[in-house]
Amino acid sequence: MKRNAFIVILLSLAITAFSQQARKDFKVDRSLSASNYLAYPGPLQKKLTPAPSGYVPFYLSHYGRHGSRWLIGDRDYNRPVAWLEKADSLGKLTPKGKEVLTKLRKLRDAAMGRDGELTQRGALQHKQIAERMLKNFPQIFAGKANVDAKSTVVIRCILSMENALQEMVKINPELNITHDASYHDMYYMNYDDSLLFKKRMPTSAMVPYTEFCKNHEHPERVMRLLFNDDEYWKNHLNANKLYEVLFKQASNVQSTEFRNSMSLYDLFTDDEIYDLWQINNAWWYINYGACPLNGGKQPYSQRNLLRKIISDADSCIALPHPGATLRYGHDTMVMPLTCLMDLDGMGMQVSDLEQLAYKGWNNYRIFPMACNIQLVFYHKKGSKDILVKVLRNENEATLPIKTDIAPYYHWKDVRQYYLDKLNKFTE
Amino acid sequence: MKRNAFIVILLSLAITAFSQQARKDFKVDRSLSASNYLAYPGPLQKKLTPAPSGYVPFYLSHYGRHGSRWLIGDRDYNRPVAWLEKADSLGKLTPKGKEVLTKLRKLRDAAMGRDGELTQRGALQHKQIAERMLKNFPQIFAGKANVDAKSTVVIRCILSMENALQEMVKINPELNITHDASYHDMYYMNYDDSLLFKKRMPTSAMVPYTEFCKNHEHPERVMRLLFNDDEYWKNHLNANKLYEVLFKQASNVQSTEFRNSMSLYDLFTDDEIYDLWQINNAWWYINYGACPLNGGKQPYSQRNLLRKIISDADSCIALPHPGATLRYGHDTMVMPLTCLMDLDGMGMQVSDLEQLAYKGWNNYRIFPMACNIQLVFYHKKGSKDILVKVLRNENEATLPIKTDIAPYYHWKDVRQYYLDKLNKFTE
Repeated sequence: MKRNAFIVILLSLAITAFSQQARKDFKVDRSLSASNYLAYPGPLQKKLTPAPSGYVPFYLSHYGRHGSRWLIGDRDYNRPVAWLEKADSLGKLTPKGKEVLTKLRKLRDAAMGRDGELTQRGALQHKQIAERMLKNFPQIFAGKANVDAKSTVVIRCILSMENALQEMVKINPELNITHDASYHDMYYMNYDDSLLFKKRMPTSAMVPYTEFCKNHEHPERVMRLLFNDDEYWKNHLNANKLYEVLFKQASNVQSTEFRNSMSLYDLFTDDEIYDLWQINNAWWYINYGACPLNGGKQPYSQRNLLRKIISDADSCIALPHPGATLRYGHDTMVMPLTCLMDLDGMGMQVSDLEQLAYKGWNNYRIFPMACNIQLVFYHKKGSKDILVKVLRNENEATLPIKTDIAPYYHWKDVRQYYLDKLNKFTE
Repeated sequence: MKRNAFIVILLSLAITAFSQQARKDFKVDRSLSASNYLAYPGPLQKKLTPAPSGYVPFYLSHYGRHGSRWLIGDRDYNRPVAWLEKADSLGKLTPKGKEVLTKLRKLRDAAMGRDGELTQRGALQHKQIAERMLKNFPQIFAGKANVDAKSTVVIRCILSMENALQEMVKINPELNITHDASYHDMYYMNYDDSLLFKKRMPTSAMVPYTEFCKNHEHPERVMRLLFNDDEYWKNHLNANKLYEVLFKQASNVQSTEFRNSMSLYDLFTDDEIYDLWQINNAWWYINYGACPLNGGKQPYSQRNLLRKIISDADSCIALPHPGATLRYGHDTMVMPLTCLMDLDGMGMQVSDLEQLAYKGWNNYRIFPMACNIQLVFYHKKGSKDILVKVLRNENEATLPIKTDIAPYYHWKDVRQYYLDKLNKFTE
């Protein structure tokens, strides 16, 4: 009984700690509330754990998202400008509203013809990640090491890949690089799992999500900041849509050339930012996480990718110096793959959306721009026991698998665990 | 009178010489008949002309086509297989027909999921062109030279660019490279000149072209090689379409992994190959050359590109060490740009399609896979007279402009000539 009480206290403390994490994070840096628009923060872990004695890294298998980009679809740039321009022409904008309109016009103009394209910051992120790969694991990338890189057929992914590869060649011009971006590989690089995707938002998920949004979306204060006439914003535009797109614009400024000269975050209070983030966090969890509200199977959209990572490893670790397999794609793969692999407990099942952030499922730590998962393989002379360490955004991750040498794991256990998990899934 | 007779004799000799050039070429190497499917032959000119005394190269401006690729559209792979399979199921194929079907199936399977994509040979072509650029003009690419590369948004062009850039970094890791592929730049990288394109095939061009095709397309012999029943191929399939697509397939094998193990050229006689090439040659001339039958304005589709080349040069040659401007696109730009610039007389006007090949307008010398135009700029200490040399597929080209130092030209003359030409064009 005493022991149970103790556990309850510990759990409450843990939950309180988590509950404050996202709020605390956003107080320090509002840009963290940007969900998938967060510009890659780089590794949070300053020093990686040395390998067990005698083990050296010899193969790296990776899946990474493209770097920072412009927003996708010019609607997000054009519509808020059009809405505010109309209000302006009717004399309904406050000075603050006019100021926001000026900023939105600048963003729209800069984004023109660059729909969803990689920004310069995005290119830099991939150069730096590649540089750290070679610095952290020089044995893997030594001499004429093979680097096989694949990208989805989306240009921002191809350019992300190529920025990484150019950096690698710069450091080691001897590398033997192959690179491709082909529909041929899309079945695992960006699997269009239409059957599974149809099951994302059944009524059992839609009803609580709609309720959650209602509780957390309060555009009134911001609307009063922008418009001088309540009647206007209440009856002549969709205030929720404008509020959402303003937060999206605010979130993505950090990825652009305006990141040091412009911000839209001053529109929002801390509470509003936390609320808006929570709505996005819940949406991503339902659509890509192991959310029980829709059956918790969405992470399996990455089953082809995980199988390919395993089968590539099977053939590569049979070689003495296999090099690296790099794959460049999207948040919509890194997110469910993280959940499918249950890295750092991100495969958690949470039915109450209000509890999600409290339990520590924080999307900005999963899939910022340029987010990546690296499996680093180690071998030791005279031993057949291959070890693997997983880096999640370059931080050592915990796997849902027993090990005596964390953060290192025995590859045979890891391989078996994931194959068993995949084999149990039925479409 | 005597002099005139002499000229007539000279002209006849010249025409005879040209008339035999394509035929002669195809006798030596049938793959040359592939028009735009010809794999890049590399420079034909073994040694480049040294620059006038004191002049050194300091800026390079380039537009190049992607390297060897798979055919675009799976119809060209699927349809001939389907047609021959149907005939086979009805017992209408000869042993030769069955052999061709086997080859076509192999090509179709290898091309699956690789619609229009760069092949390995295509990647290699761009590595080699880049390597020669740095070897031929080391001064341009020395130290931290700037290389600004742009590609159209088509993946085979992006990967061509990246293969070139990787090779450059390998040779000089210090290069300062920027690279992009954006809709933002498509107005000059691949201008969709829909108004001008509509004027390609007026009746005045369509009638002689149709007549020309009728004179040069004779599928009968090949059909009898494939089918054991004249009634079948005459009444149950489109023999001309099959004949054309077989030649297209034969033409493109050289760009694929089958280039050393398979050929379809044994289907055709020398005359048939020459005839089929002539049809393609005429088609490309009408659609992209300065063909009088449609008004001869089609090369102006590249006016934005030529202006951009000039304006880029204007700003770059003001710098002491500008580096290079590289652009990666398509045959449908290199071809009309060559004609617009009238390089080596390729802007010629020929009304009689039968005369086209006789006059030396041979498309395979204009736009093979990876074809490219390089403007190399030279300066001299103490002189303001900038010189330019144009390489067409890495061979020194003649410009329609006076010079005392061919193949070098005074940039101020070249610039003025092309600006005057562009300014005279009205849409």
